[in-house]
Amino acid sequence: MKSSVILLCLLFATLTSSAQNDSLMLRKIYDQALVSGDAYENLRELCKDIGHRLSGSEDAEKAVKWAEAKMQSYEFDSVRIEPVMVPKWVRGKPERCVIVEDNTQLDVLALGFSVGTNGPLTAEVVLFPTLQELKDAPEGSLEGKIAFVNQAMDPTLINAFVAYSTCSSTRVRGPSIAASKGAIGYVVRSLGLRDDDFPHTGVMFYSADADSIPAFALSTNSARRLADKILGGEKVHLLMEADCKLYSDVLSHNVIAEIIGSEFPDKVFTVGGHLDSWDVGEGAHDDGAGVVQSLEVLRIFQALGFQPRHTIRCVFFMNEENGARGAEAYAKSCSERNETHLAAMESDRGGYTPRGFSVDAPQATVDYFARWMPLFEPYEAHIMVKGYGGVDINPLKDYGAPPLFGYVPDSQRYFDVHHTANDVFEHINKRELELGAATMASMIYLIDQNGVP
Amino acid sequence: MKSSVILLCLLFATLTSSAQNDSLMLRKIYDQALVSGDAYENLRELCKDIGHRLSGSEDAEKAVKWAEAKMQSYEFDSVRIEPVMVPKWVRGKPERCVIVEDNTQLDVLALGFSVGTNGPLTAEVVLFPTLQELKDAPEGSLEGKIAFVNQAMDPTLINAFVAYSTCSSTRVRGPSIAASKGAIGYVVRSLGLRDDDFPHTGVMFYSADADSIPAFALSTNSARRLADKILGGEKVHLLMEADCKLYSDVLSHNVIAEIIGSEFPDKVFTVGGHLDSWDVGEGAHDDGAGVVQSLEVLRIFQALGFQPRHTIRCVFFMNEENGARGAEAYAKSCSERNETHLAAMESDRGGYTPRGFSVDAPQATVDYFARWMPLFEPYEAHIMVKGYGGVDINPLKDYGAPPLFGYVPDSQRYFDVHHTANDVFEHINKRELELGAATMASMIYLIDQNGVP
Repeated sequence: MKSSVILLCLLFATLTSSAQNDSLMLRKIYDQALVSGDAYENLRELCKDIGHRLSGSEDAEKAVKWAEAKMQSYEFDSVRIEPVMVPKWVRGKPERCVIVEDNTQLDVLALGFSVGTNGPLTAEVVLFPTLQELKDAPEGSLEGKIAFVNQAMDPTLINAFVAYSTCSSTRVRGPSIAASKGAIGYVVRSLGLRDDDFPHTGVMFYSADADSIPAFALSTNSARRLADKILGGEKVHLLMEADCKLYSDVLSHNVIAEIIGSEFPDKVFTVGGHLDSWDVGEGAHDDGAGVVQSLEVLRIFQALGFQPRHTIRCVFFMNEENGARGAEAYAKSCSERNETHLAAMESDRGGYTPRGFSVDAPQATVDYFARWMPLFEPYEAHIMVKGYGGVDINPLKDYGAPPLFGYVPDSQRYFDVHHTANDVFEHINKRELELGAATMASMIYLIDQNGVP
Repeated sequence: MKSSVILLCLLFATLTSSAQNDSLMLRKIYDQALVSGDAYENLRELCKDIGHRLSGSEDAEKAVKWAEAKMQSYEFDSVRIEPVMVPKWVRGKPERCVIVEDNTQLDVLALGFSVGTNGPLTAEVVLFPTLQELKDAPEGSLEGKIAFVNQAMDPTLINAFVAYSTCSSTRVRGPSIAASKGAIGYVVRSLGLRDDDFPHTGVMFYSADADSIPAFALSTNSARRLADKILGGEKVHLLMEADCKLYSDVLSHNVIAEIIGSEFPDKVFTVGGHLDSWDVGEGAHDDGAGVVQSLEVLRIFQALGFQPRHTIRCVFFMNEENGARGAEAYAKSCSERNETHLAAMESDRGGYTPRGFSVDAPQATVDYFARWMPLFEPYEAHIMVKGYGGVDINPLKDYGAPPLFGYVPDSQRYFDVHHTANDVFEHINKRELELGAATMASMIYLIDQNGVP
C-alpha cells in the first residue's frame, strides 16, 4: 500500500513537472516569436518584392526561387524543391462589366478558369436571389441570357469560414448550372461579408455536360447596385468583356525544408501553407501568412536549440488556389518514399490573432490533444474543435491517416480581403502573425515530445 | 426517496429548459446585432460628422447634442443629460520637435495637460532607456537639459493592456520626475507596440513639487531615430515648440438613456463608454466603439421586445481621457438619488473581436457569473477573468460595490491606433463591432434575468 502511494506520488510529480516543463517551453517559444521573429519581415519580402503569384506565372517561379533561397539562408538540415505540373490560367487585360442602359461600370474580376468573352458579350441579365432559385429555373429558360446570382454569405454564422463554405457553390458551381439552362454568361456576388468595391475572384469548375461560359464576380456594392436596378422593374442588359485563357500545364515546385528528427528521422511532421496566390493583391493573408508562419516554426526551434525527436518538415505548397496539384504531388512522393507521418498542420486561414486548432482525426484522438489546451490559455489560443485540417495536407489522409491540424486564427476579417486586390501586407498585424507562428510551434513541440495516440 | 428523485428531476428539467431558453435568447440577440445592427452606422456619424472631441472643445459639445438626439430617436423610456464641469486643455498650433544638429523633424504630439514652450525651447537631450534609470539619475543632473525616456512596451506580454499599464508611467509620471532632476523639457517613446510614424498622445499629471515642463510623445520610429543618434555617441540638441494651454473648467454633460425595469425600476444596470476622445483622429476605437455598443444594447432589447426586470441605463460618459469627471459626477448623482446598482459594464478597450469579460468582484461572485460562459462558446467570447471593470464605472465601487464588468475584445491591434491620428472609422470592422454589442447585451440579459449573488 505504502509503496503504491509513493509510486502514485512519483507519477504525479513527474506529470506535474512535465506540465511545468511544457509550460516553460511554450513561454520560450512565444518570447522567441515576439522578440526575435522573422515572419513579418519575410512576409514583407514575399508581398513587396514579388507580390501576387498565381500558379504557372512568372511571379510564382520567382516566389519558388525566393522561398528556396530563404530556406537555405537558415541552414536547416535540408532544403529541396519538388516538381509539380500546374495549370496556367491567364487573366489577360482587365475585365469590363457595364450596365448597358446607363453605362454604369461595375467592379468585377473574372473567376479563375473562366473562359474569355471573345470580344464584348451583351445580353439581358436575369437575377436569382439564391443559387437554389437558379437551380430551380426551367430548362432552356436562360437561353441567350446572362444569369446573376446575388446570394450573400449568411452574416449570422459566427465563424466566417462556415458562412463561406455554405455559400461558395455560387462561385464554384454556378456558371455550369447557369449554362445548363442556356445562359451565355454568369455574374455572381462576391464571397465577402462587407459592403465594398473589391470583387473577390476564386476558382470555378466547368461541368463536362454544359457549355463553358464567361463568369465574373461582382463586388458586393456592384452586386447591390445591379440587383436594385433589376428589382426596380427595369430590363437590364450587361456587357461583359474578358480575354482570359487557359494554357497547357507548366512545371512548378513545392519548396521544402526540414530539421531531421533525433529519435525518429523517418517519422515526419509536415507543417505548411501555400506559396501560390490569386493574381490580384499580394496574397498576404492568403497565404503568405501561412508560409512564413510555417517557416518560422523551424526557425524558432533552431533559435531555441530545440532538437525535435521527429523530423519536422516545412512545405510551401504550390497551386492550392486552382488545382491543389502541389498537395497531391507531395502526398504521392511521401508515399513513394514510404514515409510515415506523425501528424501534419496547415496555416491557411489568414494571419489574424490566434484562437486554436481544428483537428481532423477521430474524436478520441482530438480529446487526447485537447488535454493540452490549458497550456494555451495564457496565450488566448485554447480552442480545439474536431474539424477540417487544410487543402494541402488533406491528401495525406490516404496515406496512413495521420491527425491533420488546421491552425485557427480569428475569422472575422479574413473575407474582407480574401482573393481581392485588398489582400496586401498593410493588413497584416505583426503581433498577430507572430502569435500564430508561436501557437503552431507550441502544438508541434507538444506532439513531437508526447507523440500521438 | 421517490419524491425527492422526482423533485430532483423536476429541478434538473427546469434548469435545462432555462439554459435552453437563455441559449435561444442569446442567438436572437446576436442575430439582431448582425442582421439589423445600428452600431456601425451610428459610429460612422460620430466619427465622420463630428470627429475627435476632447472634453471642453466645441466638438465635444456637438457630440453631446448628437448623442442626445440619437438616443431620443429610439424613443426609450427616458433620455437626459447630466451636467459635468470638465477641464479645457487646448493643443494650439501643431507642435514641432527638431534635432538641431541635422534639422531632422521628429513626429510628436504634446501630452495632454502639457504646458507650452513659450517660443522655441532648445537644449541638449539626455537618453534614459527606462523610466527607472531616469528615477535613478542624481538630483540636479538634468539641469537645463531635455530628458528622453525610450522605454518600449514589453512585447512578450500577451495582453496588450497589461503591456500598456506596466509602461504608462513613462508618459503619466515621467515629466515631473524629469523636472525634479532639473530637466526643462521631456520627450517619451509613444505607448504603442508597432514601429510607425504615429505619435500617441494621452494624459500626464504634474506633481505639485516639481516645475511644469513641456512634454511630448515621439512616434516609435522617431524615438528609435533619436536614440540611435545619441547611442552613436553624438551630442544631440532638440528644439521643442508648442503653445498648449489650460483654460478654466467648462460645462459639459454625460448623456443618458434608459429602459425602465418592469420588476425593479429602482435597481439599475449601467452600461456605458466614454463620449470624449483625444484631439487627434476620430476616437473610433477609443471610445466611439464603446458608446455605440452601449447604445446598441438598449436598441437590441427594444427591437426584440424584451422588457428587462431591472432598469437598464446607457451612459455616454464625458471626460474619461483627462479627468474622469463624468464618472465621478455620475456615481455621485446615483448616490444622491439613493439608487441601487445591480451591476455595471463598460466597453472601453476597442471595437475588436470579442473575447469575454473582466469582472471586478469577489472571486465567488466571478465564479457565479463564470457558470454562464459556456453559453458564449458558440460566439467564441467565453473568457471570464477576475479583473478591472473600467475607468467610468469604477467610482460606483464606493456606492454599494456592485460587480463591475469590463467588456474584453481582442487586444492585439488596440495600441496601434490608441490616442493617435490613426484611430479612425476605417479601422473598425463592422462584424467585430456588432459581435461586441451582442456579447455585452447577452451578459446583461443573463444578469437581468438571474440577478447577482
